[in-house]
Amino acid sequence: MQFSALQLASLLGGKIEGNPDIHVNNIAKIEEAGEGKLSFIANPKYEEFIYTTQASILIINESLVLEKPVSPTLIRVKDAYSSFALLLEKFKQLTSNKVGIQQPSYIPSSVKMGENVFVGAFAYLGENVVLGNNVKIYPNVYLGDNVTVADDSILYPGVRVYDNCMIGARVMLHAGCVIGGDGFGFAPQPDGSYKKVPQIGNVVVHDDVEIGANTTIDRATMGSTVIRKGVKLDNLIQVAHNVDIGNNTVIAGQTGISGSTKIGANCVIGGQVGIVGHIHLADGTKINAQSGLSKSVSETNMALNGSPAFDYKSSLKSQAIFRNLPELEKRVKELEDMVKQMLSEKAGI
Amino acid sequence: MQFSALQLASLLGGKIEGNPDIHVNNIAKIEEAGEGKLSFIANPKYEEFIYTTQASILIINESLVLEKPVSPTLIRVKDAYSSFALLLEKFKQLTSNKVGIQQPSYIPSSVKMGENVFVGAFAYLGENVVLGNNVKIYPNVYLGDNVTVADDSILYPGVRVYDNCMIGARVMLHAGCVIGGDGFGFAPQPDGSYKKVPQIGNVVVHDDVEIGANTTIDRATMGSTVIRKGVKLDNLIQVAHNVDIGNNTVIAGQTGISGSTKIGANCVIGGQVGIVGHIHLADGTKINAQSGLSKSVSETNMALNGSPAFDYKSSLKSQAIFRNLPELEKRVKELEDMVKQMLSEKAGI
Amino acid sequence: MQFSALQLASLLGGKIEGNPDIHVNNIAKIEEAGEGKLSFIANPKYEEFIYTTQASILIINESLVLEKPVSPTLIRVKDAYSSFALLLEKFKQLTSNKVGIQQPSYIPSSVKMGENVFVGAFAYLGENVVLGNNVKIYPNVYLGDNVTVADDSILYPGVRVYDNCMIGARVMLHAGCVIGGDGFGFAPQPDGSYKKVPQIGNVVVHDDVEIGANTTIDRATMGSTVIRKGVKLDNLIQVAHNVDIGNNTVIAGQTGISGSTKIGANCVIGGQVGIVGHIHLADGTKINAQSGLSKSVSETNMALNGSPAFDYKSSLKSQAIFRNLPELEKRVKELEDMVKQMLSEKAGI
Repeated sequence: MQFSALQLASLLGGKIEGNPDIHVNNIAKIEEAGEGKLSFIANPKYEEFIYTTQASILIINESLVLEKPVSPTLIRVKDAYSSFALLLEKFKQLTSNKVGIQQPSYIPSSVKMGENVFVGAFAYLGENVVLGNNVKIYPNVYLGDNVTVADDSILYPGVRVYDNCMIGARVMLHAGCVIGGDGFGFAPQPDGSYKKVPQIGNVVVHDDVEIGANTTIDRATMGSTVIRKGVKLDNLIQVAHNVDIGNNTVIAGQTGISGSTKIGANCVIGGQVGIVGHIHLADGTKINAQSGLSKSVSETNMALNGSPAFDYKSSLKSQAIFRNLPELEKRVKELEDMVKQMLSEKAGI
Repeated sequence: MQFSALQLASLLGGKIEGNPDIHVNNIAKIEEAGEGKLSFIANPKYEEFIYTTQASILIINESLVLEKPVSPTLIRVKDAYSSFALLLEKFKQLTSNKVGIQQPSYIPSSVKMGENVFVGAFAYLGENVVLGNNVKIYPNVYLGDNVTVADDSILYPGVRVYDNCMIGARVMLHAGCVIGGDGFGFAPQPDGSYKKVPQIGNVVVHDDVEIGANTTIDRATMGSTVIRKGVKLDNLIQVAHNVDIGNNTVIAGQTGISGSTKIGANCVIGGQVGIVGHIHLADGTKINAQSGLSKSVSETNMALNGSPAFDYKSSLKSQAIFRNLPELEKRVKELEDMVKQMLSEKAGI
Repeated sequence: MQFSALQLASLLGGKIEGNPDIHVNNIAKIEEAGEGKLSFIANPKYEEFIYTTQASILIINESLVLEKPVSPTLIRVKDAYSSFALLLEKFKQLTSNKVGIQQPSYIPSSVKMGENVFVGAFAYLGENVVLGNNVKIYPNVYLGDNVTVADDSILYPGVRVYDNCMIGARVMLHAGCVIGGDGFGFAPQPDGSYKKVPQIGNVVVHDDVEIGANTTIDRATMGSTVIRKGVKLDNLIQVAHNVDIGNNTVIAGQTGISGSTKIGANCVIGGQVGIVGHIHLADGTKINAQSGLSKSVSETNMALNGSPAFDYKSSLKSQAIFRNLPELEKRVKELEDMVKQMLSEKAGI
């Protein structure tokens, strides 16, 4: 792989500052990039490196104002992060593109497959499984009976999809995630024990969803747990039965969502957040990491923080005073002493 | 599958209001159920749907008072949730009931099996494994040497049980859960490194336990980590070495329990709770989601909340004031100003 | 297995108090140990058992002062915990030591292996995988292309290592952990959707690391996510892309570390801690369970607590007052009443 600044700029629709003929052969982080390497700056935290990097070519935002001369050839684009992502994607496509059926794998005759499918060794496909074109099923994956996977989806090693679940197109399921395990539903009995409520629904994962490693999404009691188009879930997230997550909502690692909660579109939810069951979050809700949501949010685009969560800015103020609670308590003590003193003086007069 | 209201009422011991001859062919959620569907109402949150649902038959509590006429035929029972669970179970039993040994699987000659066992492809059984009657081992399951699984238990795909662990009867282990990994024990060394403390104990899972997807239960350093009869664990829970969880305790997703802690019977523990090591929780302890338990609870049936957790009701009061801390701080400031003013006036006199 | 107190004391360099010829044949917890059993006391919480245990031999710290006579033969050592760990290790080594290649497994001809390797059934090795001497690959493990595993490492069942990751020597990876899944990186698009940023880096796990069950460590966007020598990670931990964890740092279960954060050496991090991205924690930082770190820590050996976290001792004071916030609010109310009363009396005069 060898690209000139001119080639890259024309691919990205960017503007060159420096030598258009300089070449790069690989991609690296700004703080580690040496000669012959391509790098980028999108986060202002890293702008200082622009003056010290040994990279041969840098992709930067067209809006970035330089304070002094720099050594790399620059390619200015509207959005350096997106442009760089595009280049990474091209690079990724140059790496191995698996196709074919490895042996031993378990594929009943009722399974239907599209073209260019990959099924790794030790993968297990249940009865009536349907795989679209270009689907990649890595080794040790399990698909239960009647599972469908639409075109261009990738299921990494050890993914488990229980019976009757549906996976959309261009979906990426990372290693060890579990789709369609039983929802956590039990009816308390008079003797203190619990009786399992059978979970006969399924999980529907729409197109363009990515689900992280070891994340678990439970099947619905009835009906479907729904992960809508473009949702991105990080690792180790728990999604309970009958949850519905709206288009393009992004959720960071280790967050948990309790049963029957409905999350709107375009929400951004931090890591380790807990959300109780049977509530609704409006579109565009933003939730800070480690928050706990116990009530529905009806207004769109609210930012929330804390456990229990409330308005983000107010919560920061409360947290700041929390830090100084001993000081506040001291002020109250001093007031009490002063007032007592005043009262005793008054009584004394 | 086709059932009349009369058949269902007689199965459930319920009382019909409406047409006893009306038929249903499937089960659905109240808000989605159409003609020919059976549904139920147990949660008061959903009672409004009773007047709009298109379901043909509804199961409701005998105590529910109607405010106006309804369209479905009603079957009144003592506990609608339990009755509905019973019907779901019958429905679930009608679906596939796997039996037999799929190939390739790995089964040494020292393994002993009961009747009607299912072992899926790519399942691995260690030396001296014992499987009871009707046990189902799904594909890609791993059982270490000397593991025993009693009658009627189901181990879903990708379950891992390390050497010497014991699984009771009617246990359900969901995909990806890990039973018997090493406890997290290390002896600090003078040079700052840590030396592993070998974990030679095991995990004992008693009868009627359900364990969620990707939950991890560590083996004891010595002796056993014990999950007692009827315990229900949700997904992504961490149970450390030498923990003991009492009968019929229920724990929601992503909770973590540190080493050697003993949890009583009939406890109800919310999601994302953290419990430190070496403490005891009395029977019937209730812990709110996201709480952090740092001390033993000796009184039974306490409700706790917060991190660190204390009495539930008191903690709600503290949380309410926390929300208004800026207001409290302002009140203190105003008092200071007033008292200062009074003092200066007094001095001025 | 049968050892005398004399043999054990000489192995451990300890001093006998009692009968040097007494024998033990197994190891047990102090509260469960009977005749013929060896046990130990390291945690002062368990010292009471020293006077009631039926164990035949006890290992204790040389500094422990007895209050009355005891029944077991004692072996006094500098550090009872380390000595006991050493004995457990010897015991563990006596159990099964697997070697050889089980069938069916998937091993391309490009794979290179050292001596005494174990590869379990249904394990999958990608192209160009390299395994050092004495490496144990348990059943159902997946190693992607170009993965290397150095000498004496153990990968338990269902471990997943994506392409190009490197595992050091004497590393232990527990069941279901995922090394090298894609980092969680997406570029927001004008239409509200997200475009995946391909993750072309890897994960490098250095020597003597232990990683718990179902823990996930994402590959770097570029460069490497690095887990340095001697790090111990518990179960269900999330380590995001480009994180760097320093030598001998220990992290308890369910903690999450966001992208590009750098953690120093010899840190001790509790369970369920959350750490934001792009920060640095100095060497020796101690973080209490359930804390949330939102800022870098530049001073070494700081102890922190709370979410958001600050100085441990101060945070305990704030938490204590938080518990009594209703009382503090009442005191402010009383002050207001008193001051109001004083003002109205003054106005009345």
